[in-house]
Amino acid sequence: MIFYYAPKTISLASHIALQEAELNYEARRLDFSATEQQSSAYLGINPKGRVPALDTGQGILTETPAILAYIAQIASDSELAPVNDPYAFAKVQEFNLYLCATVHVAHAHRVRAYRWADDALAIEAMQERVPGNMRDCFRLIEDKFFKGPWVMGETYTICDPYLFTISNWLEGDGVQIREFPKIAEHFQAMQKRPQVREILLIHGL
Amino acid sequence: MIFYYAPKTISLASHIALQEAELNYEARRLDFSATEQQSSAYLGINPKGRVPALDTGQGILTETPAILAYIAQIASDSELAPVNDPYAFAKVQEFNLYLCATVHVAHAHRVRAYRWADDALAIEAMQERVPGNMRDCFRLIEDKFFKGPWVMGETYTICDPYLFTISNWLEGDGVQIREFPKIAEHFQAMQKRPQVREILLIHGL
Repeated sequence: MIFYYAPKTISLASHIALQEAELNYEARRLDFSATEQQSSAYLGINPKGRVPALDTGQGILTETPAILAYIAQIASDSELAPVNDPYAFAKVQEFNLYLCATVHVAHAHRVRAYRWADDALAIEAMQERVPGNMRDCFRLIEDKFFKGPWVMGETYTICDPYLFTISNWLEGDGVQIREFPKIAEHFQAMQKRPQVREILLIHGL
Repeated sequence: MIFYYAPKTISLASHIALQEAELNYEARRLDFSATEQQSSAYLGINPKGRVPALDTGQGILTETPAILAYIAQIASDSELAPVNDPYAFAKVQEFNLYLCATVHVAHAHRVRAYRWADDALAIEAMQERVPGNMRDCFRLIEDKFFKGPWVMGETYTICDPYLFTISNWLEGDGVQIREFPKIAEHFQAMQKRPQVREILLIHGL
C-alpha cells in the first residue's frame, strides 16, 4: 500500500493507525508548500486535492474515517475497532464522525476559511469564532463522549489517533488543552506509545 | 428502535434507509420551529442537539454515515452496503464521508452560517459562496464518483438516499440539478421507489 500524507494535516491520524496495525505500507510525503496536492499527478490519485489518500492495491481510498475503518477491518488482529459488533462499531464511527464533520470543520475556519468566503473581513470574523467553537466541541467530548483512559474505554481504537491529531491543533486554535483534564491525559498517553513517537518524528512534530 | 428526525434535515437519508432495510422502528418527529432539538429532554438523547438520532435499544447513535453503516450491517439481507468486503465498504463510506464533511458543510454555510461567524456581513459573504461551492462538489460527484444508475453502480446502497437528500437541497442553494445529468436522473429514479415516496410524504416533501 502507498500512503499519501503531509505534515500538519489530518493525515497524521491514519498514519498512526497504519503503524499501530503493523501493516506494510510506503509513506509518500506531499509538499504542500509547493501545492503538490493540486498537481495533476496527485489529482489523478485524489481528485479532491487533499490528504490522506491510501492506495490499497485494489484502488484509492480517501476520507479519514473511511480509511481508519478500513485499516481496522483489514488488520482485524490489531483489534483497532469492534468491526463485527454493529452497535459498538457504530459508536466508534459516531465519535470519528463528530471529529470529522464538526470539530475538524470548526478548526478549518481558522486556517482554511477562504473555502467559505472571499471577503477578508468575513474570514477574520470566522477566525474569531474558532477558539469558542473548538472549546465547545472539546467540552462535549470531555464531558459526554470520552470514556477513558482511551476514547472508547479500556481498549485503544481508531478513535485515539484521530482525537490526538485534533487535540494537537488546540493550542494553535487558541485553546489550552489543560481545560480538559481527561483529554490532556490522553494526549500525554498517546505521546508515550512507540508507534506514535515514530510517526510524530516523520511529521516533524 | 426509535428514530428521531425533523423534516428538511439530513435525517431524511437515514429515514429512507431504515424503510428500505425493512427494519422495525418508530419515527418521532422533532419540532424545530419550537427548537425542540435543544430541549433538555432531547439533549439527554443527543447532547449535540441535532438530528438524526437512533435509539437502537442498546444505546443511542448519531451522525448520518455511522447510522447508515449500522443499518446496512444489521439488515445485512437488504444488501445496502458490502459490509464484509473491506475495500468495497470503504468506498461506500468514502462517498458518504464526502457528502458529510464537504457537501453538507458547504450547504450549511447558507442556512446555518451563524455557527461560524457572528457578523451579519460575514454571514452574507459565506452565503454568497454557497452556489459555487455546491456546484464544485456536484461537478466532482457527477464526473468522478457517481457510477450509475446508482451511486456505486448496479447495486443500490446507503449512498443513494444520502445523495438524494442533498440533491434535494440544490435548488435552494441556487444550483440547477439539470447541470448534472446523471445526478438529475438518479434524483428521478429515487422518487420512483415506493419506500422513498412513503418517507417523502412523512417529511412533507
